[in-house]
Amino acid sequence: MPSKVVSDIDSIMHSKSVAFFGVSARSGKLGNLLLQAFKDIGFEGDLYPINPHSEEILGLKAYKSMKEIASPIDLVIISLHPSKVPQIVKECVERGVKGIIVFSAGFREKNSEGKKLEQEILELIKNTNTRIIGPNCMGIYSPSTKLSFFPNLSPEIGEVGFISQSGSIANILTLIGTINGIGFSKIVSYGNAADLNFNDFLEYLGNDPETKIICSYIEGIEDGERFLNLSKQISMKKPILMWKVGETRGGARAAKSHTGSICGSKDIWKGIYEQTGIIKIENFPDLLGHIFAFINPHLPNGNNIAILSGPGGPAVSAADACEKAGLELASLSDETKNKIAKLLPEFGTSVQNPIDLSLQIAFDQSLHDKTVEIIGQDENVDLILLFVGTLNKALIRGLIKIQNKIKKPITIVQAVSSGAVAGFGSLKDLHNPIKPKKIPQFMKQLFNAGISVHSSEQEAAKVLMDLVNYSNFLKKSK
Amino acid sequence: MPSKVVSDIDSIMHSKSVAFFGVSARSGKLGNLLLQAFKDIGFEGDLYPINPHSEEILGLKAYKSMKEIASPIDLVIISLHPSKVPQIVKECVERGVKGIIVFSAGFREKNSEGKKLEQEILELIKNTNTRIIGPNCMGIYSPSTKLSFFPNLSPEIGEVGFISQSGSIANILTLIGTINGIGFSKIVSYGNAADLNFNDFLEYLGNDPETKIICSYIEGIEDGERFLNLSKQISMKKPILMWKVGETRGGARAAKSHTGSICGSKDIWKGIYEQTGIIKIENFPDLLGHIFAFINPHLPNGNNIAILSGPGGPAVSAADACEKAGLELASLSDETKNKIAKLLPEFGTSVQNPIDLSLQIAFDQSLHDKTVEIIGQDENVDLILLFVGTLNKALIRGLIKIQNKIKKPITIVQAVSSGAVAGFGSLKDLHNPIKPKKIPQFMKQLFNAGISVHSSEQEAAKVLMDLVNYSNFLKKSK
Repeated sequence: MPSKVVSDIDSIMHSKSVAFFGVSARSGKLGNLLLQAFKDIGFEGDLYPINPHSEEILGLKAYKSMKEIASPIDLVIISLHPSKVPQIVKECVERGVKGIIVFSAGFREKNSEGKKLEQEILELIKNTNTRIIGPNCMGIYSPSTKLSFFPNLSPEIGEVGFISQSGSIANILTLIGTINGIGFSKIVSYGNAADLNFNDFLEYLGNDPETKIICSYIEGIEDGERFLNLSKQISMKKPILMWKVGETRGGARAAKSHTGSICGSKDIWKGIYEQTGIIKIENFPDLLGHIFAFINPHLPNGNNIAILSGPGGPAVSAADACEKAGLELASLSDETKNKIAKLLPEFGTSVQNPIDLSLQIAFDQSLHDKTVEIIGQDENVDLILLFVGTLNKALIRGLIKIQNKIKKPITIVQAVSSGAVAGFGSLKDLHNPIKPKKIPQFMKQLFNAGISVHSSEQEAAKVLMDLVNYSNFLKKSK
Repeated sequence: MPSKVVSDIDSIMHSKSVAFFGVSARSGKLGNLLLQAFKDIGFEGDLYPINPHSEEILGLKAYKSMKEIASPIDLVIISLHPSKVPQIVKECVERGVKGIIVFSAGFREKNSEGKKLEQEILELIKNTNTRIIGPNCMGIYSPSTKLSFFPNLSPEIGEVGFISQSGSIANILTLIGTINGIGFSKIVSYGNAADLNFNDFLEYLGNDPETKIICSYIEGIEDGERFLNLSKQISMKKPILMWKVGETRGGARAAKSHTGSICGSKDIWKGIYEQTGIIKIENFPDLLGHIFAFINPHLPNGNNIAILSGPGGPAVSAADACEKAGLELASLSDETKNKIAKLLPEFGTSVQNPIDLSLQIAFDQSLHDKTVEIIGQDENVDLILLFVGTLNKALIRGLIKIQNKIKKPITIVQAVSSGAVAGFGSLKDLHNPIKPKKIPQFMKQLFNAGISVHSSEQEAAKVLMDLVNYSNFLKKSK
C-alpha cells in the first residue's frame, strides 16, 4: 500500500483543474510561461488564469480571484512576489486545493525575511490536505497526465523520471531529451523543498510503474536515514542516477544561495553511493550517457572489456581510459582472434585487444558490426567499447541487431556527431551522416537497445564501470 | 638559421611533384585515397600515379615505373605491401627524391620481420638527402603548399599545427576542424617514426611562422633530452598541446601494437609537463577546447574565476568543477555586485559569485553579455566561465565584443549545441539556434576571439586552469 505522501503526490499528478497566479495579459511575465506550458501540452482539464486586472490571458478567460471559480481547483501555481504567497496559500487551504506549486523565489535561499515567509506558508498547510511543491521551483512535467512547466515540451510519455532541486536543470534536460529521442515519465523540480522534498518524490517515483530509471539533481538533503533506506530499496528495483553538487567549499556556498541547501561532505557522499547503489553523475553529458546505458541495462558479469576501433589511435586512448576507470582489457580467445584475423587486412590492423580495424573501414563499414558480433560471443568479454569517427544509419541498425543477440553492454564513442556532419554538404558522401531531424529516431533505437553514445572515451569508460558496479550491487543485495 | 632537419622537412612541404605507388584503376585501394586527396586539394605540381598494369588512374595518366618519368620527383608516397617498399626506397634514393611517405603498415609495429624491413629502409637512406615519413602513417596535410592525406580536406590555410603518431586521429581532427571553423597550418601523421620523428616535426613547427599553436598526439618518444630542450624553448613562443596515450598497462600494450612505441611511465610524464609547459590533453573534445582557448590566449593574471549562469543549477556544478581543477571563486567587488543587482530581478537571482541570472534570461538574453561585461571589469576576476543552455548568434556577437574589451579568458559551457537544436522546428523559436551550415563561421569568430566552448563544466574548468598554469610557466621562464 502506498504511503500517504505517495498518494498525495499522485493526486497532484492527476490534477484536473489548475489556477495560475502571477499571469498577465502583458507579455514578459514569468508566470505566463507556466500557463503557456499547460496549453502547449494539451492539458485536458480546466485552466484558470487569475488576475484582477485582466479579462483574458493567453486566450483564456481570466478570473479576478479564486472566489469567482465555483468548481473545485486541484492545483494552484503561484508566480507572485513572495510576500503575496501566504495569503494565496491560506485561500488554497480553505478550499481544499490538493497541491500548490510555488514558482516564486525569494524565500529561504534569499534572506532571513524569506526564511520567515517560508515558515509561514508551511504553518498554513500543517495538518491539512494541501501540499506544497517549492518554493523556488518549476513544478511538474508529467506527459501522461498532461502537466507541464515550460512551453513546448513534448507530449510523449517515456520511462525516465527526474527529480531536480534546480528548475533550470530540469528544463535543459527536457531539451536534451527531445534531441536524443528520450521520453520522460515525470520530471519534478522541487526547489527549496519546504514541504514535499526529495525523499517524497524518490518514494513516489520508486513506486511509479511508468518510471524505469530515476535521475536526480540535488544540492542537499534532509532526513538522511529515510533517504538511505529508500534509496537502497529502490536501487534494487530501478537504477538511481544522482548528480549531487556542492562538493567543494565554493560549490556549497553557491548551493546555499541557490536553494538554501546544506550540502554534506564529499566523503560522506562517497559512502552513500557505495551503500545505496546510487550512481554518481557529474554533468549533462554524463547524465545522458548513463540514461542510455541504464534504461534497459545489459548487466555485465565482470569487468573485462573489449575495445574496438577503426581508427587505431583512439583505441590506445580508450584502453587508458578504461583501465583508469577500473576496467580490465579482456584476453580474447584464440577462436575470436582467428575469426577476426580472417575479416581484416594483414597490415595496419590488430586482432589483439584493443582491436584496430584500420583505415580499411573507410571501404567496408560493415567491419564494425561484424567484429563486434564476434567479440560479443567471446566468453572472456563482459563489455564492449566501440570507437567510431561518426555513426551512420547502417552501423546503428547493425549494432542494435547484435545487441539483441549478445546482451552485453555496447558503448560507442563518437568523435564527431553525425548531426554535426550533416550540415556540411562537402562531408556528406564520405561520412554518411544522419539528417538532424532523424537523429531522435535513431537515438531512440539505441536508447531502447541500451547502447550509450559518448563524445569521449573517459565518459564511456565511466558509464561501463558504473554498470559493473551496479551489477555487483544487485548481486550483493540479493 | 634552421637546422638541416628543418630545411629537409621544409623541402618536402614544398614538393612540386609527387609519385604514388599502390594506386590502381580498380576502386577500393587504400593508396587511391591519397592520390584523390592531392587532386581534391588542388595540388599545383605534377601527380604521377605508378602502376605497371594501368593506363589511367583517377583520370590521370599512369606510369609503369618511375623510370618513365624524366622530370624530378620531389615526393613519393608508397601504399604497397611492406616487402615491396625497400626496392622503391632504393630507386628514390638513386634519383634524389627528397621525401618518401610510407603509408604501408606491417613494419616495426607488426612483428620481427617487419622490424627488419624497417631497419632495411633506414639503411638505404643513410647518408643520403632522402628522408622518410612513416612507415604506418598518413603523411602530410599542408594547405598552403597543397599537400594532403585524405580526400576532400579543406584548402583553407589556418594557424593550428598538429603532429600525430596516429593517422586516424589526424584524419578525424581535420573533420572536427571543418565543423568548428578551424583551419590548419600543417598536420603531420608520422606513424612509426623510422626516420623523421616527433622531435623533428616539433622543431619544424616551432620554427614555422604559419603555426601559432602546436597540437600533438603521441604514444612514445625517443631522445628524451632533445625533446625536453625543444619543448621548453618552443613552449615559450607558442603553446604545445599534447595528447599522450599509453599511460596504463593496457594502453601501453595497445600502443606497442599500434606504432611499436614504448610509452614511459605516467609519473615521468607528469614531471615533463611541469618542466616544459606542455599542456596535457585527454581526448578530442579536450583537444578542441584547448585549441580554442590557446590559439589567441588571453593569459590570466591569477586563478580567480567568476561563474555566471542563467540556469542556477549548473552554476553550482561549475563552482565544484572549478575548485576541483584548482581555480578559486573570485570575491566580486561591491561595485560589481551593485551594478549586477541593478540589472537583475530581485528574486531567483544571485549577485554573489557564482552569479545566477535565473529564468529571467528567457525574456532577456542580453543579461548574459551585460553581466559578463561588468564582471570582466572587476579587478578581482581573472577568468570567466559562462554556462548557457544553447548559444545563439546575438550572444556570440556580444561576447566577442566584450572579449575585445576585457581581454580575460571567457569560456562557455553549452548544455545543448545550437546545431543540435537547429534540426528541430518545434524548438527553434525558443532557442534561436544557429543553422548547422553557419556553425563554422560562428565558431571561427569565437576561435579568433580566444573563447572556448565546452559541453561540460569539468572540461571548461580544465582549460581555464591550464591557461593559469601556462601563464605561470611563461612568467617563470622569463
